[in-house]
Order: sequence, then C-alpha cells, then structure tokens
Amino acid sequence: MDRRELLKLGALAGAAAVTGVGANALLRPSPAAALAGLPGGSPLGNRRVKNVIFLAYDGTGYEDFATADFFARRVVGQPLRYHQFLSEGLTGTMIPSSLTSWVTDSSAASSAWSTGRKIVNGAVNQFPDGTELTPILELARATGRATGLVTTARATHATPAAWVAKVRAREMEEEIAIQYLASGTDVILGGGQAYFDPAIRSDGRDLFGEFAGAGYDVVKTPGELASSSGSKLLGVFAPSTRHVAYEIDRRFGGVDQPSLADMVRAALPRLDGAEGGFVLQVEAGRMDHANHEQDAGAMVWDWIAADEALGVLLEFVADRDDTLLIHAPDHDTGGGVTFGWGSRYSRTDPALMTFGNVRCSYERLLLDLMPRNPSPAQVRELVEANVGVPVGDFAAENLAALVSGTDMAGLRWGHQNAVLGSMKYQVAQLLSQSFENRPERPPVSFATSNHTAGFVPVVLAGAGIEAGNLGVIDNTELFGVMTAALGIEFENPAMTADEAQELVDEG
Amino acid sequence: MDRRELLKLGALAGAAAVTGVGANALLRPSPAAALAGLPGGSPLGNRRVKNVIFLAYDGTGYEDFATADFFARRVVGQPLRYHQFLSEGLTGTMIPSSLTSWVTDSSAASSAWSTGRKIVNGAVNQFPDGTELTPILELARATGRATGLVTTARATHATPAAWVAKVRAREMEEEIAIQYLASGTDVILGGGQAYFDPAIRSDGRDLFGEFAGAGYDVVKTPGELASSSGSKLLGVFAPSTRHVAYEIDRRFGGVDQPSLADMVRAALPRLDGAEGGFVLQVEAGRMDHANHEQDAGAMVWDWIAADEALGVLLEFVADRDDTLLIHAPDHDTGGGVTFGWGSRYSRTDPALMTFGNVRCSYERLLLDLMPRNPSPAQVRELVEANVGVPVGDFAAENLAALVSGTDMAGLRWGHQNAVLGSMKYQVAQLLSQSFENRPERPPVSFATSNHTAGFVPVVLAGAGIEAGNLGVIDNTELFGVMTAALGIEFENPAMTADEAQELVDEG
Repeated sequence: MDRRELLKLGALAGAAAVTGVGANALLRPSPAAALAGLPGGSPLGNRRVKNVIFLAYDGTGYEDFATADFFARRVVGQPLRYHQFLSEGLTGTMIPSSLTSWVTDSSAASSAWSTGRKIVNGAVNQFPDGTELTPILELARATGRATGLVTTARATHATPAAWVAKVRAREMEEEIAIQYLASGTDVILGGGQAYFDPAIRSDGRDLFGEFAGAGYDVVKTPGELASSSGSKLLGVFAPSTRHVAYEIDRRFGGVDQPSLADMVRAALPRLDGAEGGFVLQVEAGRMDHANHEQDAGAMVWDWIAADEALGVLLEFVADRDDTLLIHAPDHDTGGGVTFGWGSRYSRTDPALMTFGNVRCSYERLLLDLMPRNPSPAQVRELVEANVGVPVGDFAAENLAALVSGTDMAGLRWGHQNAVLGSMKYQVAQLLSQSFENRPERPPVSFATSNHTAGFVPVVLAGAGIEAGNLGVIDNTELFGVMTAALGIEFENPAMTADEAQELVDEG
Repeated sequence: MDRRELLKLGALAGAAAVTGVGANALLRPSPAAALAGLPGGSPLGNRRVKNVIFLAYDGTGYEDFATADFFARRVVGQPLRYHQFLSEGLTGTMIPSSLTSWVTDSSAASSAWSTGRKIVNGAVNQFPDGTELTPILELARATGRATGLVTTARATHATPAAWVAKVRAREMEEEIAIQYLASGTDVILGGGQAYFDPAIRSDGRDLFGEFAGAGYDVVKTPGELASSSGSKLLGVFAPSTRHVAYEIDRRFGGVDQPSLADMVRAALPRLDGAEGGFVLQVEAGRMDHANHEQDAGAMVWDWIAADEALGVLLEFVADRDDTLLIHAPDHDTGGGVTFGWGSRYSRTDPALMTFGNVRCSYERLLLDLMPRNPSPAQVRELVEANVGVPVGDFAAENLAALVSGTDMAGLRWGHQNAVLGSMKYQVAQLLSQSFENRPERPPVSFATSNHTAGFVPVVLAGAGIEAGNLGVIDNTELFGVMTAALGIEFENPAMTADEAQELVDEG
C-alpha cells in the first residue's frame, strides 16, 4: 500500500485518529502534516485489529544500523532480520522532536506515541500545568484488552512508564511502580528491583508483596520466569536501580538474567490468551545507554539481542492478520558512527572485525574492577582481555585511580547510577584516547553523550500490511495509527509549544 | 508501486540489469540481494525513459537532514522540498560501502552507481589490476543521448569524474579533464579552473582553448553563464583548485559564482534539446567538505542550496513521464548531529535559532583572515561578527597564530587545498572548544572528520513512479535501475573483494 492509498483510507479511519493528530498538528505544525497533509489515517483503513505490538528501540538510528549490519553479517554470521523487515514493511522516517525541543528525551518521546501529544522533556504524560494525558494502555484496557510492558531498561523507566503512568518527572519511579500496580497492566518485565523493594523504597512499601497480593506471579530470575505459570506477571531481573544487563555481559559475562527475546517469549502467550486482544510495548532499552556511555561494543550486542526479539515478534505476526506490529526508535543517541579508518579507509574492515573481540561492556568492566582496588597493571590486563586492544600507561593509571577512588557501597542508592554513568563515560574517554592510533581500534566514534535530533526509521508490519512508503511522519502520528487500528475514539487535551514554554519559564 | 510489484517487473527488465547486479551480488553478496533476492529490476518494469537525472548529495545523511529540516523551517522559513520528496517517492535506504571497505570514498561510490560494480576506494572506474569499467555516461552516449555533469565541487572531482573517466587514482584531475574533452560530454559545470589552465597544468595544455576549439562555450562567471547560448558548455567558476563557493559565502559574502540551482537551470534546456534524450548527474558536492571540516554553518546552507536545485529538478519532471529522477547521498561524512543541549535539552531550540546568525564558512574566514596578518583582537572581531558566538582568548590567539603563520601564496598550487583543509579543521577544533559551554553555541557536534558507514536515503521519482518502498538496496543496484530504464544492455567485468584485496596487498 502506498502513501496515496493510505491517505485515501485515512478518511475512513474514524474521527478519533483524525482529530487526535490533526488538532495536535495545528499547535506546532507537524512537518509531515504541514507538508503532505497526512491526516493521521491508519494503514488499515477502517479495518480493526485485535492486537498491537510496538517494538521500541531506545536511542539508536541509521548509523548504528550500519555498524550493527556489518557486525551481524561479518562478525556474528547472521544477517539482521531488521534489514529485510525495513524492505518489506510500510516504511517511513519519523521525526522524534518533543514539544519544546528539537531533541527529545525518552519520556516525551514515549508520551508522544502513547497520547498523540508532544510534551516537554522530562515529564510523563503531563503538561507543565499538571494537565494529565491518557496513555494508550489505559485506553486499550478500556476496550477489554490485556496490556504488557517488556523492557531491558528498568521496568519503571521512561519508555515503558509513558504507556501507563502520569507523573511530573520521569525520575519519580517509586510512584510509577505504584501506578503500575493500580493500572492492572498484565505483564511487566524489566530491571530495577529498587522501586519495588520495601528495604529501598522511601515509603517502605513492599510493592513485590502488593503485586503478589493482586494476583501476579512475581519473578526475579530466568529460572523463576521459566517456571511461572501465572497469567499476570511481574518480572524484575536486575538488582537496585540497575537495568537488565547488557547483552554482551549476559552472553560473555555469565550474568543470570533473561534476554529481551526470553522476556518477549514469556509475555506473548500470556497476553495472547486474552479474549479481547492485547497491546504490548517491547523496548530494547539499552542501546540508548550504551550510546550515552559511548560504548560501541555494548551497543552492537544489544542490537543483536533486539534483533532476536524482533525475530520472535515476526514469527508471532507471520501467520495472522489480527496483529499490527509497529517498530521505531524513540530518538537517536550519541551520534556514534563507523568511520573510515586509515589510508583510503583501508583499515576500516579489519578493525571492524577485531571489534568482534570485545567481551564486556564498560559498565561490567567497572563493576568488575571496583571491588578489587586494582593496580594499573591489573587494569591493563583485564581491559586488554575484554576489549581486545592494548591499553596505554596513561589510560591504565587513570582507570586504576578512577575505580579505586570510588566507594560505591558508601553512596546513597539513588546516586549509584549517576556516579556509575559518569564513570562509564570517563572509561570511554580514556580508552578512546588510548586507542586513538591503534590500527585495531574499534573504528567507531561518537559526536556527543546526549540524544540527537536525527530522524529515525519507522516500520508498520503485520495485519496484512504490504510494503509501502509511510513517508516522513511525526512521532505523535503513531497514536492515531494505533487508536484507529484498535477502534478507539479518543483525543487528549492539547497545549501549544509557546504555552508550554511560558509555563516552564514561569515555573 | 511496492516492492513486490517491483520484483515482479524486475523479471521483465532486460538481461543487462539483472545479470549486471546479479553477478556482482555473487561476489560479496549485496545485503539487499542476499536477503530479499532483489534482482536489480527497474521500478519502471520494461518501460523505457528518455532521460535520467541523478541528483547526488555528497557526504550527508539522516542526521544532517534533521538539522537542515529545523534550519529550513524555523530559521530560513521555507520547508525543505526534500521532506515531501521522501514521502512521495519510491523511497528506500542505500548501503554505501565500497569493494574492500564498509566506508566508501566518493570515487568508489560514484563508480558503483556508474558501473554497477564496487571498486577499491580512491580509484575511478578501475580495478587494482588496471581493468577498466565502462561508466554510465559513455553507455548513454552510445544510445544517442546527450550527457551532462553539474557540481559545486571541482568539475573534475571524484563524483562527476566517475560518470565519464577511468583513472587509477582520483587525484589525477589533469587527466580527468583530458578525458572529459575526449568524451564529448555536452555540459560540464563546476569549480577548479586549475585543471584546465595552461599556466597551472603540469603539461601546459590549454584545456579551456581545446574545449572552445571543440565547440564548447567556455564560461567562468555567472554573467558569462547567463549570456551563453551555446549548446555545448564548459563552465568552471572557481579559481585554482577551489570548489565552487559554499552557499553561505555566495549568499552573505558576495562571492560572484553561480548557485547549484543556477547551474542546473543552465544545463537542463541544453540537454533537453537533444533528440535522443539525456543523462545528467547533478552533485551537491560541498556538504561533504563542510562535514569534513566540521563546519555546520556551511553544511546547512549548502543543504538549502541543494534543496533549491532539487526544486528545479522536481519542476522539470513534474509534468512529464519520460524522465526518471534518482536522488541519493553517496555516503555520510563527519557524523555531525544536532545534540540535546542544556538541562532537559531545553537550550537546544534557542541555540539552533542563534545558529542562524552564522554568516560565513570557516573556509571564507580563513581566506579573509590570512592576507591581513591579524591580531587576536581582530580575529575575535571578525569571527564574532560572522559566527555570532563570543570567542575566548585561547581560540583568538591560536587562530591569529594559525593564519599569520601560513604563506599560502608561497605554496605549490597543488598543496594549497590540503593546507587549507587542515587549517579549516583546526579552526573548527578551536572554535568548538571555545564555544563549548556558551549557551548560544551551535548545538551541532561531529564524531569524525572522515566518511562514515551510515546508510543513506534513496528516492526514485518522476517517470510516473508512485510512492512505495524501494527497500534496503546496495549502491550498485542503481546502475541496473538506470540501464533498464534507458534500454541499455551492458555488464561490466567483475572482481571479488578478496581478489581486489590481494592485488592491493601485493601493491
């Protein structure tokens, strides 16, 4: 189906989708809406689907795709399913901006998908005056559908949170966990046990116990996940405020946590059992973190893991036309690129091949090094064994000082992640300087440790959708696609960018 | 037309296209070919067109698109035509690799389009054993078509060169100019007078005179271009080895050279007059240079200029179905991104707006500063007036030392460009350090000064083509698209990556 047919069918797609996106477009004209008149129509026309699955890649884009594509075929030896998926879907380009910034954060981005409204970065389904927006999973439950959230980030992190919760600031993850419980969301899988743990929560509430009391199977290990037979499921697999481990550490570091594909395999049969259908968000959440930390080894392996999850979802939708699959990154992060290396870029491919020797993330390197109070020589040994590139004296000495100078156990738990994040970035800087002229250096460098404005690919598949051009769309337009497909008529309140900015400036 | 129809029609598209790409795909499987079985079919099926226009953006991609999109709408006040173009075309994603490197250079990239074969970076239509490939404009002339090359780079630079010439190394621009003359290419417009000038050429040949003797109007200024009425045209608008000026300098610095759109407007009626049709390559060549030099101001204005040229081409193809328009970057360069700036990225948009105050390229800044032997205070004044951001002492002092220490006039002409390039990069580094924590800094940073592996957008339009998904294709596949559309049956010789690498290693 091409764009013209899509536009034609859009007129039949129900008032909800059209007014939902149309009204928002008037506030600050969505580029796609302004330029091409896209009325937010559904690719399915007026046909409904039982289920919607939204696969979000957090913090990645076309450059990472190119790096991962080489890595998958030449190092791992298995082409990315994503490659063919892009070719066979209704494929377009998504503008990931938020209400007042050309560069979004994950909470505003996920809220845009979930409500059809751009909001200010940092909030979850709230305008700055406190006006709350109704997220897609709440709308889906009202139609009798089961709902689920699966992520490799913390279960209460911004991208999953924005499909259920409404809070002023994304950092309010204790409150988000409470709202999850109240929401009745059927399946919740991710990391970050802290926000459910009475020993850590500031209010002392035992959310694990409360979820169990509400009929959930509560699991914390892959073994418990595998043996659970409950229809409602809370799985929180990482200690403290940690996300689920990077795939590279799960694969090579013996971390006993489930893969994203494992979690998806656990979620699907539970949700698919619901008579009224389901809506599921799956987030490959940690490419974003790897890119913030400028850790290319962690990034590519999380792409491989995300692609495995994509494979599970493609199998699920392959032989049925009642399930719409939507795929998009929420934004790009880090501006990491595979760059041409050496004379006539002749070192690029050999260096990309040795890049396959990386065996752990910078995060795992730190967690391994910190308790040891290591000498520079010990640091060098561990880094060389895991990253596969010789380390210079300056880097080894500074890394030893870095990890020996920080008493993580002495930090307030809420600060551990921030300190660890800052340290990971310092590791990236030290190693990148140390590798700078090594022929075998990973030929990947980064432009920033923040998010970027880069437009990202978006694909619609399943539900009988044929290959086509979805065009350049705004992130908010996917709300209209979902609600039209689910037969939901709903429009969230609106606020202009100028109104929001004024409230922020006053605030 | 969607991908399935395309594949179906591909079977009718003639042996040339099918075997041309198919054979190459066997060497090192093209990802698209390997994954989706794309036989290189034409989107037009077995229908032929009279004309093909290929608009190449050199060294840019999705992140630049996002930066330029904001800049066009919010600063310039005119949305990019490219935005809508992506939505309405047969649009896909192109893999820009070369034969032995995941990161291509421009000569291998343009050769891939021109011959259907990947080659080693640095060569122009030659394998390392000297085997020559036949480029598309030679094939087009053999069908009686007129041919043209229009670029903002030097006329003899890699991207245009690879559609006509065959040389061992892209730097052989004196030889490329000779091959242009022998080729009979009807319209040649660009920069770089050195390669035609008897006072500079190492062989003393007067190529300007020889072109005139062969029936060309030879022009060197916009005025001469406007008043020329010749059907064959050589226009070389920039002195020495310089490219045509950056758009930002043309627009604000009073440089008397034509815009890319001006050159396209001069080329089209001359070529369109040919009875047998024509093939034209138009290159927006200088985004690549701006990105190598990490000069975001120059990059965005060259995007604006390229978009104007796209507009001229879209008007040309709008009311006719005999002209196929192909658009793609050859690769991305620099990994430049608009990054989230400030708390919650709240400074991003205001800083992007002040980014509109930039009034000259780093290149022009250097060319203006060098003859003056300026003091740090004078440097600061000039930079602040043209870049719109306060400059620190360290940067001002080092810039003054940089421009005062270099006697460009004393350099061999062939070295001027290399020295200038290196100096521009140093300007970028000094200014970017100086701006680092200024709230109004241009919120654009770069990952590298080299090319990147990033996949790039590709669009087919005109010739009755409807919106659709072209899929993920290899750069070589566009040769098959062009030859099938032009009714050309031809297959270039083939070489595997391993064979080529062995020859290079023996070197």
